[in-house]
Amino acid sequence: MSTKTDPTTAPAAPTPAELGVGMRFSIHPHTDDFVGVILGALADAEAAGLTDGLAIRTDEVSTYVGATTVPAEQRLAAYLAAVVAAASRRSGGGHVVAHVLLSRGCPGEVTCDLGVTGLPGAAAVELEPTGIRAVAHWSLYPLLDGGSDAGDHMTHIEAAIARATARGVASPAHYATKLVGDVAEVLATAVDAWAEVGAVVPHVVTHLTVSVGSPSRATN
Amino acid sequence: MSTKTDPTTAPAAPTPAELGVGMRFSIHPHTDDFVGVILGALADAEAAGLTDGLAIRTDEVSTYVGATTVPAEQRLAAYLAAVVAAASRRSGGGHVVAHVLLSRGCPGEVTCDLGVTGLPGAAAVELEPTGIRAVAHWSLYPLLDGGSDAGDHMTHIEAAIARATARGVASPAHYATKLVGDVAEVLATAVDAWAEVGAVVPHVVTHLTVSVGSPSRATN
Repeated sequence: MSTKTDPTTAPAAPTPAELGVGMRFSIHPHTDDFVGVILGALADAEAAGLTDGLAIRTDEVSTYVGATTVPAEQRLAAYLAAVVAAASRRSGGGHVVAHVLLSRGCPGEVTCDLGVTGLPGAAAVELEPTGIRAVAHWSLYPLLDGGSDAGDHMTHIEAAIARATARGVASPAHYATKLVGDVAEVLATAVDAWAEVGAVVPHVVTHLTVSVGSPSRATN
Repeated sequence: MSTKTDPTTAPAAPTPAELGVGMRFSIHPHTDDFVGVILGALADAEAAGLTDGLAIRTDEVSTYVGATTVPAEQRLAAYLAAVVAAASRRSGGGHVVAHVLLSRGCPGEVTCDLGVTGLPGAAAVELEPTGIRAVAHWSLYPLLDGGSDAGDHMTHIEAAIARATARGVASPAHYATKLVGDVAEVLATAVDAWAEVGAVVPHVVTHLTVSVGSPSRATN
């Protein structure tokens, strides 16, 4: 995978599928026509060509999206931003919430037998602004093992929050960090933080509850 | 707090507030009348006396619920089950999704300065069945530090999944465990697992996406 090292001596970087880079998300239009909005938004993102390199499977609770090719983080973020923006448009700017779980380092369903050497970094994702304001609660979980040399979990979390704060979108809340900004910037902040921790911690998960069009805004 | 030890020599068990035992949840009725359903469900749970011992604060994205008195886990689970059941009833059995984050071990907003000695266990929660079928995706995050002696994070997760499977409600999925059963049993499974890990791991979080009344059921 790398042109900088001799492939006969250096192990290839693990693929997104080998690392288990992917997400689960659910999208909740608060309207009687939620089925039409959800199915329409998923179809819009597919029609825009944003499902390339992704394995997508929807079940009763959420949609699983596994990245099969690089750039995995960019593909996941662009697809997610498109689905959220499409759902907002299709509900006429109404209240839509997405819940997202991004995971890397646990490719199987139960165990986490990575069997890879080396954790690849990822370029920061680049998303076009959607023009839609989002407010989100974001949590990041570096899943260390006792006895590892990757430090304390809170050190990684605090560094990620500091980077998000420097982007101008973050403020603290209990059990989460509040992110406010364009849907694209909110998603990019969480995806970048997750990928950055993933370059040093083998198993890292982040959760994000993204709200657009909330009628509560005026009172908070 | 304990009658078994001499209070002059043994440190008191930390209170739920000192441990930071609490949750954030959001509830998503997929109906035009979502504001009425949400506010009504919160009012129903309060009218039933289920907010005793809880500090509750709703913002633009979700509702924070901190437990102030024991039994913390029982209070959180009973309140949550009542809100979900009330939202389902008030939407006429329509599609309602709740997203829940349960946390213990991080009482502040950013840092996790516990300052307590000893991790209290918790009795299994006891909830009346709601009569409402739920399907959920559940994830558990034991947040260990490198260098701790609390083992590997996956060992704790796999043991929790095994216990949930023995209760008859769990099956594996990517990045989550699927739980199916009465709302009360699904919530009790996740809350008990979280509290059990919390008796040995200082900081543990669990996430749960709970769906009731989904029209997708017939096709999955």
